[in-house]
Amino acid sequence: MASVSHSNDDANEVDVGSQSSSHRQTNNMQYVHKVGVPPKQNLFKEFTTTFKETFLADDPLRPFKDQPKYRRFILGIQTIFPILDWGRSYNFAKFKGDIIAGLTIASLCIPQDIGYAKLANLDPQYGLYSSFVPPLIYAIMGSSRDIAIGPVAVVSLLLGTLLQNEIDPLKNAAEYRRLAFTATFFAGITQATLGVLRLGFLIDFLSHAAVVGFMGGAAITIGLQQLKGLLGIKTFTKKTDIISVMRSVWGTVHHGGKMQRKLFWVPAIAPLISVVLSTLFVFLTHAEKQGVQIVNHIAKGINPPSVHKIFFTGPYLLKGFKIGAVAGMIGLTEAVAIGRTFASMKDYQLDGNKEMVALGAMNIIGSMTSCYIATGSFSRSAVNYMAGCQTAVSNIVMSAVVFLTLEFITPLFKYTPNAILAAIIISAVVGLIDFQAAILIWKIDKFDFIACMGAFFGVVFSSVEIGLLIAVSISFAKILLQVTRPRTAVLGKIPRTNLYRNILQYPEATTVPGVLTVRVDSAIYFSNSNYVKERILRWLMDEEEKVKAACLPRIQFLIVEMSPVTDIDTSGIHAFEELHRSLQKKGVQLVLANPGAVVIDKLHASKFAYLIGEDKIFLTVADAVSSCSPKMVEEEV
Amino acid sequence: MASVSHSNDDANEVDVGSQSSSHRQTNNMQYVHKVGVPPKQNLFKEFTTTFKETFLADDPLRPFKDQPKYRRFILGIQTIFPILDWGRSYNFAKFKGDIIAGLTIASLCIPQDIGYAKLANLDPQYGLYSSFVPPLIYAIMGSSRDIAIGPVAVVSLLLGTLLQNEIDPLKNAAEYRRLAFTATFFAGITQATLGVLRLGFLIDFLSHAAVVGFMGGAAITIGLQQLKGLLGIKTFTKKTDIISVMRSVWGTVHHGGKMQRKLFWVPAIAPLISVVLSTLFVFLTHAEKQGVQIVNHIAKGINPPSVHKIFFTGPYLLKGFKIGAVAGMIGLTEAVAIGRTFASMKDYQLDGNKEMVALGAMNIIGSMTSCYIATGSFSRSAVNYMAGCQTAVSNIVMSAVVFLTLEFITPLFKYTPNAILAAIIISAVVGLIDFQAAILIWKIDKFDFIACMGAFFGVVFSSVEIGLLIAVSISFAKILLQVTRPRTAVLGKIPRTNLYRNILQYPEATTVPGVLTVRVDSAIYFSNSNYVKERILRWLMDEEEKVKAACLPRIQFLIVEMSPVTDIDTSGIHAFEELHRSLQKKGVQLVLANPGAVVIDKLHASKFAYLIGEDKIFLTVADAVSSCSPKMVEEEV
Repeated sequence: MASVSHSNDDANEVDVGSQSSSHRQTNNMQYVHKVGVPPKQNLFKEFTTTFKETFLADDPLRPFKDQPKYRRFILGIQTIFPILDWGRSYNFAKFKGDIIAGLTIASLCIPQDIGYAKLANLDPQYGLYSSFVPPLIYAIMGSSRDIAIGPVAVVSLLLGTLLQNEIDPLKNAAEYRRLAFTATFFAGITQATLGVLRLGFLIDFLSHAAVVGFMGGAAITIGLQQLKGLLGIKTFTKKTDIISVMRSVWGTVHHGGKMQRKLFWVPAIAPLISVVLSTLFVFLTHAEKQGVQIVNHIAKGINPPSVHKIFFTGPYLLKGFKIGAVAGMIGLTEAVAIGRTFASMKDYQLDGNKEMVALGAMNIIGSMTSCYIATGSFSRSAVNYMAGCQTAVSNIVMSAVVFLTLEFITPLFKYTPNAILAAIIISAVVGLIDFQAAILIWKIDKFDFIACMGAFFGVVFSSVEIGLLIAVSISFAKILLQVTRPRTAVLGKIPRTNLYRNILQYPEATTVPGVLTVRVDSAIYFSNSNYVKERILRWLMDEEEKVKAACLPRIQFLIVEMSPVTDIDTSGIHAFEELHRSLQKKGVQLVLANPGAVVIDKLHASKFAYLIGEDKIFLTVADAVSSCSPKMVEEEV
Repeated sequence: MASVSHSNDDANEVDVGSQSSSHRQTNNMQYVHKVGVPPKQNLFKEFTTTFKETFLADDPLRPFKDQPKYRRFILGIQTIFPILDWGRSYNFAKFKGDIIAGLTIASLCIPQDIGYAKLANLDPQYGLYSSFVPPLIYAIMGSSRDIAIGPVAVVSLLLGTLLQNEIDPLKNAAEYRRLAFTATFFAGITQATLGVLRLGFLIDFLSHAAVVGFMGGAAITIGLQQLKGLLGIKTFTKKTDIISVMRSVWGTVHHGGKMQRKLFWVPAIAPLISVVLSTLFVFLTHAEKQGVQIVNHIAKGINPPSVHKIFFTGPYLLKGFKIGAVAGMIGLTEAVAIGRTFASMKDYQLDGNKEMVALGAMNIIGSMTSCYIATGSFSRSAVNYMAGCQTAVSNIVMSAVVFLTLEFITPLFKYTPNAILAAIIISAVVGLIDFQAAILIWKIDKFDFIACMGAFFGVVFSSVEIGLLIAVSISFAKILLQVTRPRTAVLGKIPRTNLYRNILQYPEATTVPGVLTVRVDSAIYFSNSNYVKERILRWLMDEEEKVKAACLPRIQFLIVEMSPVTDIDTSGIHAFEELHRSLQKKGVQLVLANPGAVVIDKLHASKFAYLIGEDKIFLTVADAVSSCSPKMVEEEV
């Protein structure tokens, strides 16, 4: 592939370049290399490579390589049920960590579940149901060691909002519940399908910034809604936007509603203790008769089956599917973000697609056992981690505690005041408002900050769906902007080196008279090919004006530095052909520097390399410059 | 910005690197430069720059710069009506070219217009109307010198298909016409709005490949439909897909329908002559009584006003808007592609957004004067160019000829046989099938070829809308793939240079023991940050396996070459933090080479630069390598 220039007859320009450069002190180019053309791949191999990078990017089949058949079978089973893998090395030391963590998250989850079920407009026991079955399924199928599974605030709110747009939960509670199970079923189907088809990367399109804004907005909304429980307001708005909530609160305050303001400052550091104490207090003082609102009824016993309640036909099928798909995606985003964070902290691998299959299976089974959508909870997973959990067994412990609660203790929750649940939820969601992340986003990327704020204000001032829509739209707009308007830069030579860099980044870099070097910072595709062409011509026009004003030699060579141009398509080739034609009319020679493997391949396939001349393509900008204007370079040095 | 390493106390690694490299023969690094941090821009300036690059990329305000007020006003008027600019230097020499070109395209457009109107299910005169008013408006407002304006085959077919889904053109011709004008009005509004808001880049999302496929498919479909006129079949299918057309043709052939097979081979090189001759022939022989189908009726006189026919209220408003928006976008794509091609051939600038305003205004006025959607025609623009047109005056000449035709000659078209019109249309659309372009696309980019074929088969086997949808979807999928799965490459040192390049492109390049150098070929955004992190870790894992197998020193340094990483966002920074953490656990040091202006800025803003150590960021891979493992490099050399 390499060709030493002295033995290369048709590369005259290169010869001149290397001769001139050999006069220079800072020379390192005794041998001039040509741009390499990668060995031709056959079409099938190219296709399988692309397919693999797209869908099997994390190389999930690696452990299966070079294994006998029966071993592959075992590995396959273990892939679906990781418990069979880690369970074999499970020991008492790990169990000690798991039981403490499990009991801790159970004490946190029980009051949270009761509260979250109300966010989803469901009776309190459905929250507990969702903390019983799903964690068990996840423990068998999931691969995160730290995630705590169960209902979460944001998904509960989103589900509640979307469902009540369709069915009134007060007037038609049975139908509403059926739609909730239908949505849960399809949330599971969506999650599992994305995982099986290995399309998990789709959730990456909800950017970190958008999630921060969305979570913050949801937390504010939930917090405001909880003022209802906390202040004991009866005629509360069903709408979730800040204006109607504030108006409703204000109206109540104004008319002197029944308030337990004293509870507003109760710190929720030990939710279960507060629940027990307050329940005891209400029971003993009969405060419910003085207007303190209480849970009132909570069914005893474990999850009843609900598969017959799912709408598999009729108009609610499609609605349930839509709601489930949206809520399922949000659930996924939350669970995968948590899973990845803790996996990276403890340094173990997590297959996002496998996680999705586990979460999907868990919600599908959940929808058949009276659960609504469960996912990984931020607050409880953090507690789980800090309490020293070792494996998913902590979820099993939690599940067992919830089972005992459902079987024996639930009737005692009758006297639990709603206000204490509200306070617990508020203290849980406050943790979702991540000021520091927002500040960091502002510092790093203003566009990200717009996405973040768009999601935040969308949720706060309109609704969770609108916030979500804004977040996704801004994220997509960013991608489109990226592929439509790539950056370009004029390069200059850094003194005493052979390096050419952006003159805005390196103000000491100097341009070579008669030569304009432009770098294009993106693959050149149909979406930007025209822009790139016009932008390069604009750089040239600007430079020509400057040159004319300063009476310098006119631009004779335009070098396009192609290092960041990772790919080019037919539109891009066309744009270069047009650029070449325009430049020819102006008497400017187009020169390319360092095209990559894919690009050089396509430049040859399209004959563009022959159009401008193969000797006009160089390995480095320095080579290109020295071939363009050897005398000028020498003068400069 | 530059710092000479010998005077730099805290850059120990750099010192070691440069000392070791000074022992080498091929050294050019007597002075080691630090990565430049660009001067801080203020927020407002950053915002205006981004805004300008996005919406004013072609710098339309350049001529207005440094001009007095009244001059700016004149320039403004000239920008809207370019005729005031070029009209002043218009002369007889140019007129000579324009009149010949104008007469030529008029002779081509008259029979085409009559045929195309039938594709849109409109009476023949509406085609002629659309070649009278719109070219005049365009001549005043447009800036392309070569485009020939009027009805075109693909848009006529698309409009006809979309309109007849709503209203039956045979049973309800008046309503159908009203909807056609409504669609034309909104096509104009869409086009003008895109231009005024400078959102013209949106049409770039319909890639060249998709357009080639779409045009080819539309040409096949139109050609097959024209068999109807050519073969004189009466009971022809209204559906445009290939199977129903073939079945219909086959049925007719089978039953021995009335065919004028002799006309099938009439070459359509001189369409008007064939029209005149065949019309005369029919008139003299009264062949229409022997079953030759003729135009029969064509109204005399110029365009009647139609502004009162546009649906500004009612259910057809929205339908008209949707159809108009789609057909308008396709019309734009065609016109802008033609405009750009000829502008680049004659080397003049064409402002795409300004063109859109002109086309939009032309269609808005057209919709009020009984025209349907007009745009630039491929076949007639090419003829216009070859006949030596100089300015848009050729469109005025054509328009004048159409005016005379409408006023005096139309009744004579009564005896024109439909078959000759069909033959003319077929010969016009055959030019739209661009085999060579398709072959080139196959050679250059397989993914583009899929988009091309998707659009082609979508149109041929289903309908124009489906074909369009497929084309746009595949184009978007390509963009998503690009931003989700960027390429990465392992770099090696090209012998006897300081250059590090993709080892697959340069097989002679050698890797440095103990150091893995990976290049990421894309901006790192939320959509790919996770993939990039995992892919880098996978490269490391692969390399570690190889190293272990070959008993080489273990990998101690991972250099990420950042040259092509043009931007990074908060998710990207997070991914790097996680990468850094994972590498630390493995005892591998993360080193960065040549981050660009934006990236280094964000690495500092996020404190990531301090997290890995500022002395771990180098200007080149060579610097990074020599700092990493000075001894190893020396051993190698």
